[in-house]
Amino acid sequence: MEMLKVGLVGGGGSDSFFGRVHQRAACLDGTRQVTAGALRSRPDAALEAAKAWGIRGFPDYRALVDAVAKGDPALDYVVIATPNNAHFEPARACLDAGIPVLCEKPMTFTVDEAETLVERVKAGDVPFVLAHTYTGHPMMMLARELVRRGAVGEIRKIEAWYRQGWLATALERGNQKQAAWRTDPARTGISNCGGDIGTHAFVAATWVSGLAVKRVSARLNAFVTGRELDDDFNVMAEMDNGATALIHATQIALGYRNDHGFRIFGTRASLEWHQEAAEKLLVRRGVHDETYWLGANYEYFPESVASYLRVPAGHNEDFFEALANLHTTMERLVRKRRGEDVPPPYDHPGVEEGLAGMRFVRAAVTSARQEGAWTDL
Amino acid sequence: MEMLKVGLVGGGGSDSFFGRVHQRAACLDGTRQVTAGALRSRPDAALEAAKAWGIRGFPDYRALVDAVAKGDPALDYVVIATPNNAHFEPARACLDAGIPVLCEKPMTFTVDEAETLVERVKAGDVPFVLAHTYTGHPMMMLARELVRRGAVGEIRKIEAWYRQGWLATALERGNQKQAAWRTDPARTGISNCGGDIGTHAFVAATWVSGLAVKRVSARLNAFVTGRELDDDFNVMAEMDNGATALIHATQIALGYRNDHGFRIFGTRASLEWHQEAAEKLLVRRGVHDETYWLGANYEYFPESVASYLRVPAGHNEDFFEALANLHTTMERLVRKRRGEDVPPPYDHPGVEEGLAGMRFVRAAVTSARQEGAWTDL
Amino acid sequence: MEMLKVGLVGGGGSDSFFGRVHQRAACLDGTRQVTAGALRSRPDAALEAAKAWGIRGFPDYRALVDAVAKGDPALDYVVIATPNNAHFEPARACLDAGIPVLCEKPMTFTVDEAETLVERVKAGDVPFVLAHTYTGHPMMMLARELVRRGAVGEIRKIEAWYRQGWLATALERGNQKQAAWRTDPARTGISNCGGDIGTHAFVAATWVSGLAVKRVSARLNAFVTGRELDDDFNVMAEMDNGATALIHATQIALGYRNDHGFRIFGTRASLEWHQEAAEKLLVRRGVHDETYWLGANYEYFPESVASYLRVPAGHNEDFFEALANLHTTMERLVRKRRGEDVPPPYDHPGVEEGLAGMRFVRAAVTSARQEGAWTDL
Amino acid sequence: MEMLKVGLVGGGGSDSFFGRVHQRAACLDGTRQVTAGALRSRPDAALEAAKAWGIRGFPDYRALVDAVAKGDPALDYVVIATPNNAHFEPARACLDAGIPVLCEKPMTFTVDEAETLVERVKAGDVPFVLAHTYTGHPMMMLARELVRRGAVGEIRKIEAWYRQGWLATALERGNQKQAAWRTDPARTGISNCGGDIGTHAFVAATWVSGLAVKRVSARLNAFVTGRELDDDFNVMAEMDNGATALIHATQIALGYRNDHGFRIFGTRASLEWHQEAAEKLLVRRGVHDETYWLGANYEYFPESVASYLRVPAGHNEDFFEALANLHTTMERLVRKRRGEDVPPPYDHPGVEEGLAGMRFVRAAVTSARQEGAWTDL
Repeated sequence: MEMLKVGLVGGGGSDSFFGRVHQRAACLDGTRQVTAGALRSRPDAALEAAKAWGIRGFPDYRALVDAVAKGDPALDYVVIATPNNAHFEPARACLDAGIPVLCEKPMTFTVDEAETLVERVKAGDVPFVLAHTYTGHPMMMLARELVRRGAVGEIRKIEAWYRQGWLATALERGNQKQAAWRTDPARTGISNCGGDIGTHAFVAATWVSGLAVKRVSARLNAFVTGRELDDDFNVMAEMDNGATALIHATQIALGYRNDHGFRIFGTRASLEWHQEAAEKLLVRRGVHDETYWLGANYEYFPESVASYLRVPAGHNEDFFEALANLHTTMERLVRKRRGEDVPPPYDHPGVEEGLAGMRFVRAAVTSARQEGAWTDL
Repeated sequence: MEMLKVGLVGGGGSDSFFGRVHQRAACLDGTRQVTAGALRSRPDAALEAAKAWGIRGFPDYRALVDAVAKGDPALDYVVIATPNNAHFEPARACLDAGIPVLCEKPMTFTVDEAETLVERVKAGDVPFVLAHTYTGHPMMMLARELVRRGAVGEIRKIEAWYRQGWLATALERGNQKQAAWRTDPARTGISNCGGDIGTHAFVAATWVSGLAVKRVSARLNAFVTGRELDDDFNVMAEMDNGATALIHATQIALGYRNDHGFRIFGTRASLEWHQEAAEKLLVRRGVHDETYWLGANYEYFPESVASYLRVPAGHNEDFFEALANLHTTMERLVRKRRGEDVPPPYDHPGVEEGLAGMRFVRAAVTSARQEGAWTDL
Repeated sequence: MEMLKVGLVGGGGSDSFFGRVHQRAACLDGTRQVTAGALRSRPDAALEAAKAWGIRGFPDYRALVDAVAKGDPALDYVVIATPNNAHFEPARACLDAGIPVLCEKPMTFTVDEAETLVERVKAGDVPFVLAHTYTGHPMMMLARELVRRGAVGEIRKIEAWYRQGWLATALERGNQKQAAWRTDPARTGISNCGGDIGTHAFVAATWVSGLAVKRVSARLNAFVTGRELDDDFNVMAEMDNGATALIHATQIALGYRNDHGFRIFGTRASLEWHQEAAEKLLVRRGVHDETYWLGANYEYFPESVASYLRVPAGHNEDFFEALANLHTTMERLVRKRRGEDVPPPYDHPGVEEGLAGMRFVRAAVTSARQEGAWTDL
Repeated sequence: MEMLKVGLVGGGGSDSFFGRVHQRAACLDGTRQVTAGALRSRPDAALEAAKAWGIRGFPDYRALVDAVAKGDPALDYVVIATPNNAHFEPARACLDAGIPVLCEKPMTFTVDEAETLVERVKAGDVPFVLAHTYTGHPMMMLARELVRRGAVGEIRKIEAWYRQGWLATALERGNQKQAAWRTDPARTGISNCGGDIGTHAFVAATWVSGLAVKRVSARLNAFVTGRELDDDFNVMAEMDNGATALIHATQIALGYRNDHGFRIFGTRASLEWHQEAAEKLLVRRGVHDETYWLGANYEYFPESVASYLRVPAGHNEDFFEALANLHTTMERLVRKRRGEDVPPPYDHPGVEEGLAGMRFVRAAVTSARQEGAWTDL
């Protein structure tokens, strides 16, 4: 089986860490490799970074897309790992050139841009995967399948959350570039905490449950003095089936790392999952609690999920493997288009989920500016 | 040291379980005993129940209070464990007769009643303790002391919750009397879930933090068909220092038992506590996580809390011991009034907290009826 | 129902804590009370302590037993909470006088004494319960019932342990009286760690599994300089069905509290229980893990265990309630003899288990002195 | 930085899973790739497998080593992932040819072979890393560094264990090839459970503590009927400083996955680690418990460990990343020899630890055959 060739836009800065994370996730299975990139915003820095990485460098995404369009290099898909405000242009350019895209979240800077991407994807029928890393975790996929097969019953209530503590102080005033761009409206958009990690909670609440958010009432805080954007994001949501969802995220929870997860309460069972102990899914039906474990040897994984597992239970697959699973989905989409015989790609979040996320954040910001008035998506 | 004599109003029904729980909590330390009671609403049943318990029986609370007022029996305090709508009258009668009261929560049926009790307690200077059982747990007391001593810094955000699953189906239509009175507006008041367990979350959010709720935006649900009152209760609250609190409770979380707890995020530390693993308190300051354990041998308990501990660490004190601690507080209040030499009673929730809880529930119900409009307490 | 009257031998010293623990366990249910005692070894101190406790005092156990034999006071049973070397005499005296005994563990000072008690109990048909507190925990009882009903299959291997850290330093050289008598061969016997907590591990391995230890190979250590007796106790055991058991205990595990528990591996299921999280029992059958929770509302408790439960799930019953359950068993034995209608007493450890424990410790000490040579019980 | 080229001997069978695991671990960081292999024992199968993998194939290890010795392909190191009985020959051949070796454990089939490898490595000064995967986990490395820096004090006792349930039934009689070769003395050697997973427990007990096992007393069981080799392995060990270690492993613990871990009790602190929750290390010093978390942002990692971390805390690195760390160590050894500027390679287990492990298993088997007689290594 021929290796897939992957391009990377962004992610090559010395303070960036997500470029290397994508590289590792791409490489992990030995069936894909990162071979080209426009790794930084300054052309000379971009070329220099590529050299340091040992891949073919381009001064900017345009040059990369143009070259790919001409067939050299022949990339199979492109990963976009730039800051939020620089997702849209390269994504659109790739799609216009027919190049599949694996794009970081939140998908775009504005809802308008997101709508444009939806149109392009539909028009061009080009694979597009949104890099909500956690959705690549098999236990999150299993939770979704349990809902789909009716094991949870009708869903009444959802909790989805993401607690971090890294922005509890004004890190952005120091030399921390991650903090600097994330708290800067010009690069991040209308929401920091909501856009960055509130969208993960949103995806957990919607993608796993199969429900859409209809309207929201929100309260956003900027607790750290001098911060323009939210570092705390709280949403009460009404789902399209009438369920209530509490969707909340914070960056000021001192000492918390990436405490992301969800609870789903249905008429037949409750589900509970915690990202920091991602190898287990708690299922409660009332008699006693059941813990489902990650592991290729467990028959409770439907084939759609099982085909993503790498090892027997007890040896955890975690962050890199979850992201690698999104690359696997992209790989399957690409190989399937080529006519190769691959297992079916799982329906991981794509451009529609990306648009919904953008609308969710916009509605939350609007609601918060109006004292929590209920706002439709 | 002479045993204290305790009276009990309510709690003697065959389906009731809290009467026996209070009896056990009263007895536990060997310094208090339940000796008299008006245990049920029907006079003959009340007398019969007392006989079965082996204590002196009274047909109703009035007869009991009258007798105590005349000095026979000489009760040191009275526990009120009736349904919500029957707290006020006996409580007022006791206070008017100068009898100390340990009253179940929520304190009263209406805010007006609660205000009356506040007046009476102030006027008569009679001890009054509100039976928010969980506040008797030493780790919850320790959390409060950590806040008081500044270890948590300025509080920015609070989460307080209570998840149960026992009302996920329409139990009240069967033969379950607990479910029947709790879902009946005539006996429970304007809120079922909020009044019963939302108040526990409220007390965690306020009593531990030392902050008051200023205003709320609420969403209440009655998920089970035919239910008039809420079985799901969600509040976004603004605290008096500007902090945000998520205070939520539910009774439809299938398979959840008494998943009560809180997180408090301050500028110096975060605290996290779970009632179902009540022996530990998680303290996060940023370097590594610290787990504080319950245990008489640990020097991190201030004397005010340490005087409530019964055994060295590793042998958990739990539900009965927590409630017994509220009896201990009442015992100390009573003995102190008599001039006995006792350790200082801890400032457990009393009549003011009870009033605040009633106002909180009322404001939440009002807000929920107006689509979550922010409502002052 | 008339209250049972309980006598207490020992446990009244200012440094003792187990006397008060038994008092609380006796009192908890409101059906038993401690009314008389010979609380300390020095007659005057014994009388003084009784006065302070507010109970009828006796200068020594003989005086107490003589008085009870004459019917005043009319005690229903006697609790023996003296140091190990002072269990036998009062126990024998009570049995000879026909007084039921609830005796602390290890049962006696020597195997000979234990054999004598077995004879007396058999001869006199007097109730005798051994106070292995943890066996009173309903989840430990449930584990035993699961084994009995065949849910675990044939048992192949057992792990039972008890880790403490309180003797990691030479506490006995300071003013710590608990440490002083426990490390003193004259008062403790041939083994400190083994006798004190190794016996708990032994009971877990045998009483829950229904298997007997046939022979042992042991290694004992006295890590703290100057200590004559073991503070670390390790046994490899062969069970009567051919299973292997690792039974180990230590007092030098710095920072460990009362980390007691067991794992039982059978051909149908594995069981795992931890005393410090005593409210749950982990059951593994291979498909997914199941957690069974303590709680009066769970139908998986057989009636023999369910009759010991006090509250619905989610409100833990713990140390005091577990010990209270042993008092409940004694109470049922006593009331049954009187012809009262009570639920069947559970077969908690008694004189036979006490003898087995003494033989186990003796065999372990013998083996350890011979470089771990396999030694029959 | 040029990619390292890696060769693979074994691991290419359809039932094998460790070949692919090594491939992934090699690939993960994007600085190494598997380019050649002698993947199976039958020459034609070996060539076919290599074709399927898309790497250069060799009929057997000899052909591969000969080719590398001639410089084509130019491999930087070779991974040996054959069954136990086929480690030695290819390892020796590589060493003789000056090719660095990353070898699966247990290192060899016999102690003699292990001694030979030690000589060759010493003589040739060729890098040799033993693939004890778990030692690649940063928290296990951190534990070792805490011991080294004296934070644990003098070590008194160690527990190290590995519990699995996959061989609780006679899988080897079915079509399970992993089970077949592991339970076959001809391919596995004198011990199944001890050699396969007992050695992991041995390495945890010795490599982390810095102590050597002096002598052992062992009890081995073959619980499943018809099994010649142990499926349960229990060792009491005396360490060279006088400490006692319990080292035990089992494959019949129904429902257990890879429950590997250790506890180390010292005079200053206790350490506890569980492979299935590998991201945390529990440190107990007596005041309260401390949990150390995996994460590149935590300053408590000494540089020697920190240089192996890939992401900030809260995104777990697990099984693949741990094994990748052993490849990283090999990569650093290789690059350092070439004069490249790399961080210091960590002293992960090598040929000496491999020999010690072989001697440990031999001594345990010898002891078990003599009723647990103490046997020197």
